[in-house]
Amino acid sequence: MRGSASIQVDRASAEAQLRSILDRVRHLPIPVTRRDAERVLSALQVAADPWEALRLSRAPIRFVCAFWQEMIREGLLRAEDGRLHLEDSGRAWIQALGIPPAQEFDCPRCDGRGVDLGGLQEAAVRFRDVVRHRPVALQTFDQGYVTEETALARVAFALERGDVERKEVLVVGDDDLVSVALALAAHPLRVVALDVDERIVRFIREVARTEGLSQLEAHVYDVRDPLPEAWLGGFDTFFTDPTESLRGLRAFVDRGLLALRGEGSAGYFGLTRGESSLAKWARIQRMLLRRNAVLTDIRDGFNVYRNWDYVETMRAWRWLPVRTRPAHLWYRSALLRIELLSSPRLVNRPVRGQLFEDEEAATT
Amino acid sequence: MRGSASIQVDRASAEAQLRSILDRVRHLPIPVTRRDAERVLSALQVAADPWEALRLSRAPIRFVCAFWQEMIREGLLRAEDGRLHLEDSGRAWIQALGIPPAQEFDCPRCDGRGVDLGGLQEAAVRFRDVVRHRPVALQTFDQGYVTEETALARVAFALERGDVERKEVLVVGDDDLVSVALALAAHPLRVVALDVDERIVRFIREVARTEGLSQLEAHVYDVRDPLPEAWLGGFDTFFTDPTESLRGLRAFVDRGLLALRGEGSAGYFGLTRGESSLAKWARIQRMLLRRNAVLTDIRDGFNVYRNWDYVETMRAWRWLPVRTRPAHLWYRSALLRIELLSSPRLVNRPVRGQLFEDEEAATT
Repeated sequence: MRGSASIQVDRASAEAQLRSILDRVRHLPIPVTRRDAERVLSALQVAADPWEALRLSRAPIRFVCAFWQEMIREGLLRAEDGRLHLEDSGRAWIQALGIPPAQEFDCPRCDGRGVDLGGLQEAAVRFRDVVRHRPVALQTFDQGYVTEETALARVAFALERGDVERKEVLVVGDDDLVSVALALAAHPLRVVALDVDERIVRFIREVARTEGLSQLEAHVYDVRDPLPEAWLGGFDTFFTDPTESLRGLRAFVDRGLLALRGEGSAGYFGLTRGESSLAKWARIQRMLLRRNAVLTDIRDGFNVYRNWDYVETMRAWRWLPVRTRPAHLWYRSALLRIELLSSPRLVNRPVRGQLFEDEEAATT
Repeated sequence: MRGSASIQVDRASAEAQLRSILDRVRHLPIPVTRRDAERVLSALQVAADPWEALRLSRAPIRFVCAFWQEMIREGLLRAEDGRLHLEDSGRAWIQALGIPPAQEFDCPRCDGRGVDLGGLQEAAVRFRDVVRHRPVALQTFDQGYVTEETALARVAFALERGDVERKEVLVVGDDDLVSVALALAAHPLRVVALDVDERIVRFIREVARTEGLSQLEAHVYDVRDPLPEAWLGGFDTFFTDPTESLRGLRAFVDRGLLALRGEGSAGYFGLTRGESSLAKWARIQRMLLRRNAVLTDIRDGFNVYRNWDYVETMRAWRWLPVRTRPAHLWYRSALLRIELLSSPRLVNRPVRGQLFEDEEAATT
């Protein structure tokens, strides 16, 4: 806090300045809230790396970047050498606002997931070996896959909830290769992976063949098409990690729900704070409840993603005040689990148009 | 699996027997689902201790006990010496149903919470010392408090989400003494604990005095009464761990919501699977969304409760086929966090009648 004591800012003028900055980003076509600004200012006190600051901000990336830009304009923040430096005036301002630095209490053993992989060691070794030559993530399909640790932790989490062992499981979009982790670690009756990307389908089929995983299959499928008859109502559990435009997310989750048998069937999907405002979270929750699904788990930060190659061409790159490639893993999402109370209330119809864009999207 | 190979049961007759048992418990005035039966049968394969089996079943206690009773009647299960023993016929039946044994993957370091208390050591020592002489849990108020570890983990969890440091916090019903943990560990601006039990109010006031915690206060308050004007809209965050009848839970959570400032304010409460069916979970989630609150976190099994003295007089005691006092901690609840999208849609009116009973309640 070097020097900050010398700059005196009173609470009222600090609040006025915050309101004025918020007003200037309110032209964004996404929700702008004071609480998100608070999260951004908590993060900036402990992280100079922009990706780390994004991760800690738990707020829409588009908002965070715009807020930073306004802070720079006001001389509260400086972008230099790929880092964000709070100016003394910025620190004094945040202090006057009474916003404390961000703190983390993630368990160092399980990275905050609460899940231990001890019981899955053998499968974990095989999984890590098998996925070494996986296809690279493509922006065309808004791909970006999770770490091997994450994929395995999802399997352990689902095993604990009785959702996968001796069950039939569908994976809707599988650049994460969760289907492979399931086949190796969870003794499912059957795992079907669907993906629009032929490279992924070929890769999973090849793994099934060379590893002798007869219960694992993969097929090319575009979620915009109705779910083929053969898969309707035929599964106990689905997994998906959808693109986060509301239309895209709904397409993926709805196909998953349509594939479920009914009461007691379960579904897993990922959802970020960076590409989905809490207003969007609420819309998604209302949608799930309307479809007879109840939320049983929301694990913040459970899914950790590998950095992808196409960072310079994603939308968020243009919003950043400092353009540096991420040195650490920064993109995280929550793991959500739903359970059906009865058959899903849904129609299996085609979805028109593109799935990847909405105002809050950052990585497409 | 001693001897189970010698008893052959085919899938179809196993399913028929399960349907018939489910039909015989359907007279219960609570939801009865096949999926809950599956969870019960997974748990029985690994736990003979009834309390451990209840914990692992993640289903309404009233249903679990009735299901056990029917299994005993059918000769599939034997209750003896305070333990539940699967008969060979029971094992063969479960095997024919294709239901695997329950598995656990909770991180051994953080007990599955995902939260590490390393950064709160000093406060943790003080908290454990201070609460040694707390009031005992009373059935009159459906009390039953969490472990010190749990109370501290809640504080760490809320600190990480920026909900308590330099914030004003209300605790609605505080036999868990979360207000004390907050005052000791979280640097809040103000913590107000409300409880209907004068013993708890006196205890917290005494701790505030002897420990010099000037930001901590406690008041007698009955959630059936409207929230006094002084506390309406005056807090950033609330905590509550309500009784789980729908009316009771709504009373506690609604007073918490009414105490919040608005957009970005947060609330925490506990919810079990043992006293609340997933159908009740869905009703609660719909209620929260109607009030402009969005769910941001649901952490299964986060709250671990100390065993209480009044186990022999609670409703579930009469339902149990084996009446033995629990030797281990078995009662758990999920920690839920909500955040307000805007002012809560709610009226501050009195609640009439008793709060503790509904058909799914087990501990009152």
